[in-house]
Amino acid sequence: MKERGKGPCAGCKLLRRKCVKDCIFAPYFPAEESQKFLTVHKIFGASNVTKMLQELPESQRTDAVSAMAYEANARVRDPVYGCVGAISSLQSQVDSLQAQLALAQAELLQFRLLHHHRPPPPSSVAAVNSPTSKHLSAVNLSCDGGAGDSLWSY
Amino acid sequence: MKERGKGPCAGCKLLRRKCVKDCIFAPYFPAEESQKFLTVHKIFGASNVTKMLQELPESQRTDAVSAMAYEANARVRDPVYGCVGAISSLQSQVDSLQAQLALAQAELLQFRLLHHHRPPPPSSVAAVNSPTSKHLSAVNLSCDGGAGDSLWSY
Repeated sequence: MKERGKGPCAGCKLLRRKCVKDCIFAPYFPAEESQKFLTVHKIFGASNVTKMLQELPESQRTDAVSAMAYEANARVRDPVYGCVGAISSLQSQVDSLQAQLALAQAELLQFRLLHHHRPPPPSSVAAVNSPTSKHLSAVNLSCDGGAGDSLWSY
Repeated sequence: MKERGKGPCAGCKLLRRKCVKDCIFAPYFPAEESQKFLTVHKIFGASNVTKMLQELPESQRTDAVSAMAYEANARVRDPVYGCVGAISSLQSQVDSLQAQLALAQAELLQFRLLHHHRPPPPSSVAAVNSPTSKHLSAVNLSCDGGAGDSLWSY
């Protein structure tokens, strides 16, 4: 969907081809996003990206391209594990949080059984939660964790 | 690394080429794992997989192929979000667990302040944790979650 008066999209420019009116890359890789196309092309290959987009309705292509760009960037940053590093880090975080929560809930249960009452929930929950949320953001951006055995199920 | 007496590796068989002694695919895509190569080839393309493997030391190639196979399978199952769906689901799970843990810990703190003692940790933590661990496995295998805004940072 090349607009009149504009140059070719980032995809056609890199592939040195004419950017036609109904170019499948143009809506998702505008001229100013050449790095995004370059990374997706390096990891998936332009022809695979074309096939993947053609198999999806237009309403889902923006999300698909964003997910592909995320995956491709993760693999460029971490050529061994790619996004799977982030999945592994998040899984470890979930396992650890589940264990801590189970322990805290079991302890609370004992307190309630011992004292037959429950104090009102405190007002400082948001403040307590804030630092762990920051830790999560760090995990999202790094994508550099090792991959656990549970991921190798293929 | 084709072994004498065996046929070509899954990669060379699919690409209909001679499987040479130092074939880069052979150690990771044996003849009996044709589906694994087919999926990785469909998503990344054989030439990109070759380049990615050539850029890694041999000691890291097995993990890299496993991660690529995981990513490729996730994208075949979920052509819009791929692995990013799993990352999004895990992030939501981490956010929810962090909020629940913060609440439970704040409540425990209040109990301790009120009663000036702490009961011994219960012996049933593993049993309490087990169901949530099963839930995590379900998330790993599905890869079908939506992708959150925090993932679209490219």
